[in-house]
Amino acid sequence: MKLGFIGLGIMGKPMAKNLLKAGHELVVYDIVKENMDILVEAGARAASSSKEVAQQCGIIITMLPNSPHVKEVVCGENGILEGAKEGTIIIDMSSIAPSASQEIYTICKEKGVKLIDAPVSGGEPKAIDGTLSIMVGGDKEVFDKVYDILMAMGSSAVYCGATGAGNTTKLANQIIVALNIAAVSEAFMLATKAGVDPKIVFDAIKGGLAGSTVMNAKVPMILDRNFKPGFKIDLHIKDLNNALDTAHKVGSPLPLTAQVMEMMQTLHADGFGQCDHCGLVKFYEKLTGDEVVSK
Amino acid sequence: MKLGFIGLGIMGKPMAKNLLKAGHELVVYDIVKENMDILVEAGARAASSSKEVAQQCGIIITMLPNSPHVKEVVCGENGILEGAKEGTIIIDMSSIAPSASQEIYTICKEKGVKLIDAPVSGGEPKAIDGTLSIMVGGDKEVFDKVYDILMAMGSSAVYCGATGAGNTTKLANQIIVALNIAAVSEAFMLATKAGVDPKIVFDAIKGGLAGSTVMNAKVPMILDRNFKPGFKIDLHIKDLNNALDTAHKVGSPLPLTAQVMEMMQTLHADGFGQCDHCGLVKFYEKLTGDEVVSK
Amino acid sequence: MKLGFIGLGIMGKPMAKNLLKAGHELVVYDIVKENMDILVEAGARAASSSKEVAQQCGIIITMLPNSPHVKEVVCGENGILEGAKEGTIIIDMSSIAPSASQEIYTICKEKGVKLIDAPVSGGEPKAIDGTLSIMVGGDKEVFDKVYDILMAMGSSAVYCGATGAGNTTKLANQIIVALNIAAVSEAFMLATKAGVDPKIVFDAIKGGLAGSTVMNAKVPMILDRNFKPGFKIDLHIKDLNNALDTAHKVGSPLPLTAQVMEMMQTLHADGFGQCDHCGLVKFYEKLTGDEVVSK
Amino acid sequence: MKLGFIGLGIMGKPMAKNLLKAGHELVVYDIVKENMDILVEAGARAASSSKEVAQQCGIIITMLPNSPHVKEVVCGENGILEGAKEGTIIIDMSSIAPSASQEIYTICKEKGVKLIDAPVSGGEPKAIDGTLSIMVGGDKEVFDKVYDILMAMGSSAVYCGATGAGNTTKLANQIIVALNIAAVSEAFMLATKAGVDPKIVFDAIKGGLAGSTVMNAKVPMILDRNFKPGFKIDLHIKDLNNALDTAHKVGSPLPLTAQVMEMMQTLHADGFGQCDHCGLVKFYEKLTGDEVVSK
Repeated sequence: MKLGFIGLGIMGKPMAKNLLKAGHELVVYDIVKENMDILVEAGARAASSSKEVAQQCGIIITMLPNSPHVKEVVCGENGILEGAKEGTIIIDMSSIAPSASQEIYTICKEKGVKLIDAPVSGGEPKAIDGTLSIMVGGDKEVFDKVYDILMAMGSSAVYCGATGAGNTTKLANQIIVALNIAAVSEAFMLATKAGVDPKIVFDAIKGGLAGSTVMNAKVPMILDRNFKPGFKIDLHIKDLNNALDTAHKVGSPLPLTAQVMEMMQTLHADGFGQCDHCGLVKFYEKLTGDEVVSK
Repeated sequence: MKLGFIGLGIMGKPMAKNLLKAGHELVVYDIVKENMDILVEAGARAASSSKEVAQQCGIIITMLPNSPHVKEVVCGENGILEGAKEGTIIIDMSSIAPSASQEIYTICKEKGVKLIDAPVSGGEPKAIDGTLSIMVGGDKEVFDKVYDILMAMGSSAVYCGATGAGNTTKLANQIIVALNIAAVSEAFMLATKAGVDPKIVFDAIKGGLAGSTVMNAKVPMILDRNFKPGFKIDLHIKDLNNALDTAHKVGSPLPLTAQVMEMMQTLHADGFGQCDHCGLVKFYEKLTGDEVVSK
Repeated sequence: MKLGFIGLGIMGKPMAKNLLKAGHELVVYDIVKENMDILVEAGARAASSSKEVAQQCGIIITMLPNSPHVKEVVCGENGILEGAKEGTIIIDMSSIAPSASQEIYTICKEKGVKLIDAPVSGGEPKAIDGTLSIMVGGDKEVFDKVYDILMAMGSSAVYCGATGAGNTTKLANQIIVALNIAAVSEAFMLATKAGVDPKIVFDAIKGGLAGSTVMNAKVPMILDRNFKPGFKIDLHIKDLNNALDTAHKVGSPLPLTAQVMEMMQTLHADGFGQCDHCGLVKFYEKLTGDEVVSK
Repeated sequence: MKLGFIGLGIMGKPMAKNLLKAGHELVVYDIVKENMDILVEAGARAASSSKEVAQQCGIIITMLPNSPHVKEVVCGENGILEGAKEGTIIIDMSSIAPSASQEIYTICKEKGVKLIDAPVSGGEPKAIDGTLSIMVGGDKEVFDKVYDILMAMGSSAVYCGATGAGNTTKLANQIIVALNIAAVSEAFMLATKAGVDPKIVFDAIKGGLAGSTVMNAKVPMILDRNFKPGFKIDLHIKDLNNALDTAHKVGSPLPLTAQVMEMMQTLHADGFGQCDHCGLVKFYEKLTGDEVVSK
């Protein structure tokens, strides 16, 4: 069956390429023509709108920045629902608010279109390698039906529950990542100010209970002053915003996430929004006037 | 050479036993006679005071609750300095404030006694297995001289820098552990309230950037409602107190640690101080009135 | 000149009545017919839509819950802009996001309609007494032109600057009020737990640097367990939400406001959203399990 | 009866002078001879130690920096208890931890000496004017007996409860003041960044629910960039430290106070510890890179 793919950004491009590599026939659409050209070169066919993608494909993947974009592409003018036949499946792999997934799911359902939310984690490197972690919410039958398609892009696809559960899981992930980055930032700044070489602290503690993927992946970047993303602070702000909104809706306060949000906003205002999220350490560097650097 | 060991609590007992197993002759002292009896049974000799330990041993290990206890045992009446010959080495393996290590180091130095701070991480299980992580501050020559003794109790002993650097490194470790536990608590509570099974969230995210030793070791405990320590909230409060004091001395603010401290204090006031520190999740359970439990 | 008044809620009703008392001819509209009936009885004329109000009046006051409502009433179907002649003035007295004021202002301007933002503080009692404090943003000439109308509802009307400045000033006000309430809550809970009668603390400190209008107006309510609004937690949440959004847009982090927001959200989830905002003390009562009550 | 006065710092000097003015015979002691000289010139007699003060006076006032100083002066070598007759009354007007007051009270009681804690608020200007607010803990009979003496230094003296209640009340006061200063700092920075003149915000909101003594006394200082103390950040840090310690002892978490503490510590590390506490606004100025100044 022909697959549609809408949204060919930094993540979307390698994901779509992996679908081509897996032998899928692909119809793509993006508002930026250059992005489509790259995929056409790789063997995809370009459409002129989301509607046209829907007219040609029974399963459509969307990979867009945030809730309003997904809503627009699915429900807006020239959007998927204008072109989709009954029974069409939309796999929304964007990281958006669970409530937005639920809202769009309901609109789709009225038109006989099925939507699952399937956000990913792992960033561009894992998108390229096809080893993304995919978290899925929606109807279990739909998940089962598209499992192989998902596994062409990821190394795992976990069914998390009803619509929105994929995005809720992603938000839980993003909260933990943000706080774990804040944790190493706060701790390594203390060590630096107390005169202990952070490289030695890293060696001494990474193997114990303080160890984490953030410790292994991000502390070396911090010590090398390498803030090339990876995952940008501005994107993490978007996710924390969705997390806070969701938390307020379901009645689950996020006192620490709210603090880290203000730290990231401080850095965004300072022009660091395009840094990797481990650039959060700069908030502490701003507070103390010293850098966390191995001597 | 005969070794002295003062402080035979939950951690001290297995550490001392591992020294005996490694073939060291041991003179022990503890204010609780029963604790000494256990070590005597295992082959150690009991002394009647810290002073007496010092009269008999050229190298003395101390493993005590906090800064004032170490100060008392080393500098107080019937303490180590009253009995120690010049050249005696004190290995203080207690987790105390770096500034206390520095203060006691200076007092010892005036009497020709050498002190290194060598706090450990890993808790009782690793104390029993002899696989503690040991972080050492003080004179490098002393560290080199006692390295083999340390390795009878731990799987690693890292030289971190001048006096206090061992404890500073330990505090960095404890900050990260506390915040990583808070991170999973905050995130898993959100998932629970949003109707997503935390067990599934755990499976979906533990392998990604949100992964950590805390995730692997503590989230299963939380999901099983198993708060048997491990490492107690009250001890973590002690460490965070030392971290905040140290941070204020060196000018490195700890905004998130200060928040987690208030959470742990809330739980301490509720009578949960003897719970494992992953019981921090109870703070969030108190806020929401719901438990984080897999369904 | 005939005045229009749209939005006859708890605040709008007494404000409209004060305009009638001041001798203004009034055309009113509200989606709830009963609200209009009350004003008609008091001498106003009812319209069937916002559009109809605009067709009849050169100056229109809007008093609505939040940004989307104002946008709908002004720019939506059967809204003001559909009926307004060029030169019409809209006085939006709702408390909304400054950026929403700016957006609606720009849309109005294109149609030759002038909008000023003129949010109020003081709550229902001062709305009834006609002693509201009014903070105004927009064109100075428009402010001057409507000054007397505003003074029929308030005891002061301060020109704060360009469009949005009225609402920015209101947000600054709401941040301070929220934090001052949190301050007395945190402090009086400490006194209670430490065994000191909060009534005595109140008497001892209200006259000094800790004194405030919140202290005088809200602490007696707290000590009487009187949480009847006044100003509701849910409305304060709306304002803090606008404050955080605005702060993020202009690059001014609000670390403490973000914390108080999480506290209020906790209480909202507990069903206390309709309590007066001094019910914030219940967050601390939840943490400690004790009530702040004079003995 | 002859009064003793120990501790002639910025506060102690004018307080002692007011006692002389009220006709009391005064014996003074301070470790800085120059401080005593000033009082001797004003008519007091100098003693050579706290002990000597106690030998000559039945009522002794102490006005010292913090808990350890009071303990030393009362219980230490050449201290009050070495010279005091049974029935002596100590009025400790220092701002210290309530638990320290209780501890020293108990030691005194064993020697038949009575101690009340009577910390003040109002700062140097009110110390000079004799209009301090005095908050008293201890035995009611002792309070009644010394009431006139207190009123020679203050405009009010409120009996707050058992020993420590004076200092608990003072801590509640200091928490509120710190948070009210933080509130105006956070709000006025937002206004500044949003382009609204803070002077206009001040005029618009000071008369409403956001009004406070802090607003009236400190915002004008902030707008004038006048950070001359008044009350220093470093002293406020001392008080918040005592507040946090007390809160942890009695089980009353202080989440916002803990945040403001980290802000003040940041400023202390930046060398602003000697600024007036309204210099807290500099924390926000550091975050945003902009000053809160009226244009």
